[in-house]
Amino acid sequence: MSELTRFGIAMDSGLLADFDRQIAAKGYPNRSEAIRDLIRDSLVQELARAGNREMVGTITLVYSHETHELNDRLNHLQHDHHESIVCTNHVHLDAHNCLEVLVVRGKARRIQAIADRLIGTKGVKHGKLVLTSTGKDLS
Amino acid sequence: MSELTRFGIAMDSGLLADFDRQIAAKGYPNRSEAIRDLIRDSLVQELARAGNREMVGTITLVYSHETHELNDRLNHLQHDHHESIVCTNHVHLDAHNCLEVLVVRGKARRIQAIADRLIGTKGVKHGKLVLTSTGKDLS
Amino acid sequence: MSELTRFGIAMDSGLLADFDRQIAAKGYPNRSEAIRDLIRDSLVQELARAGNREMVGTITLVYSHETHELNDRLNHLQHDHHESIVCTNHVHLDAHNCLEVLVVRGKARRIQAIADRLIGTKGVKHGKLVLTSTGKDLS
Amino acid sequence: MSELTRFGIAMDSGLLADFDRQIAAKGYPNRSEAIRDLIRDSLVQELARAGNREMVGTITLVYSHETHELNDRLNHLQHDHHESIVCTNHVHLDAHNCLEVLVVRGKARRIQAIADRLIGTKGVKHGKLVLTSTGKDLS
Repeated sequence: MSELTRFGIAMDSGLLADFDRQIAAKGYPNRSEAIRDLIRDSLVQELARAGNREMVGTITLVYSHETHELNDRLNHLQHDHHESIVCTNHVHLDAHNCLEVLVVRGKARRIQAIADRLIGTKGVKHGKLVLTSTGKDLS
Repeated sequence: MSELTRFGIAMDSGLLADFDRQIAAKGYPNRSEAIRDLIRDSLVQELARAGNREMVGTITLVYSHETHELNDRLNHLQHDHHESIVCTNHVHLDAHNCLEVLVVRGKARRIQAIADRLIGTKGVKHGKLVLTSTGKDLS
Repeated sequence: MSELTRFGIAMDSGLLADFDRQIAAKGYPNRSEAIRDLIRDSLVQELARAGNREMVGTITLVYSHETHELNDRLNHLQHDHHESIVCTNHVHLDAHNCLEVLVVRGKARRIQAIADRLIGTKGVKHGKLVLTSTGKDLS
Repeated sequence: MSELTRFGIAMDSGLLADFDRQIAAKGYPNRSEAIRDLIRDSLVQELARAGNREMVGTITLVYSHETHELNDRLNHLQHDHHESIVCTNHVHLDAHNCLEVLVVRGKARRIQAIADRLIGTKGVKHGKLVLTSTGKDLS
């Protein structure tokens, strides 16, 4: 854990008023936390673009469990990448539809490739990948 | 389950060759599935923009469990919205960092507000929301 | 022009070092300017989501001038919206391809609708809309 | 100009009805054109990620012309990259604010770096980059 640094920034008071309104609506406790979040998000985007750094991904998949052999295929694909997949959370959305959220860990480029495979599987209705930090890059 | 419709589309052969290369790299079994995915993603984006339709969200949070009272605060916030939060998956990333993935269900606008609150909590290093379909809007 | 406000923010020194590296690479003169940019971008995103505020859009279109009657159709569409379209910049990319950049002013929702029409015109290969501020909302 | 290929795709009739409604609202003349647009956008995103291919960028900048020496600095920066900048379009938004739209051509990574520099200049209130195709990659 590194120590805390304090520094001052200057801002037009009109811009600051708009920012204060926005962060109040989002429930931020103070400006420092809101500004740190903007900075961390900008750093995470940079990591994701670089492609070769270790990151964590959450892959969200929506599919119908009635699609022939889809469970088998998804299961098979996930076992091919078992060393990257940390865990999976499954939600029964209704009588037909499932949501599956996978937590994947590895280089950004590799997580992207696993997500492409899963999302491209026939029967998966919609899929999205979020890349985030392992926490180590963000203090 | 509604029935299947077939229709023809025309495309410049150069564009089609590029598309075939791209979808092969992503592991798509055929063009129909890849085109359906592009269409479904475009429809999900429209739903999210509308704001008032029932959707499913996955909220990804990275935080340090050592931040004073953060677990309590996150827990408290989640209980305030327990009727919208379907479940939570927790991963211990290392000795300090946690990943928490929440599955939330409700109107897009409400899911966005819950995500803003959680991501804005002091001590949460990074957070991202993915909005997807409940599966009912996408056949 | 409103006056300048100064305030302090606290940040983990590791996070600050990462931020300083990122903004140096982007050529920022100092932290204040980089933080103001993150804040202004976050406010512009909020305006665009709201939909009913006056904004400026730049619509980028790539098309082949050889497509039958495309120039006529684009011209016709632009005249239908002449009260919103400020100006147009045309670049001859090569013997076949044109780039056209329109500057459009109006409510975000209306700019989006004009962009959809233009991008959807047969023969337009690719199009993208950027929404930004009229400058009045951002000090 | 390469020739036209025709092929059939199969789609659930409910999904097709949703798509037809969406593309009618956007003004598409037919499904083929709308599907080609989704495909071309997906290919352009891939090009932008690759970074090393020739693309065209439009950089949108909003700034106040009253900021001390900003015009000089922007002008100077643009001359440093004159071999990449095709042209610039300037709009007087009101008595204080200017919009400048630059058309830039070169490798995606280089266009990104030029955009970062311009957007990071002190006094530029908001800036955004759109990357698109030179038209040669998209038939």
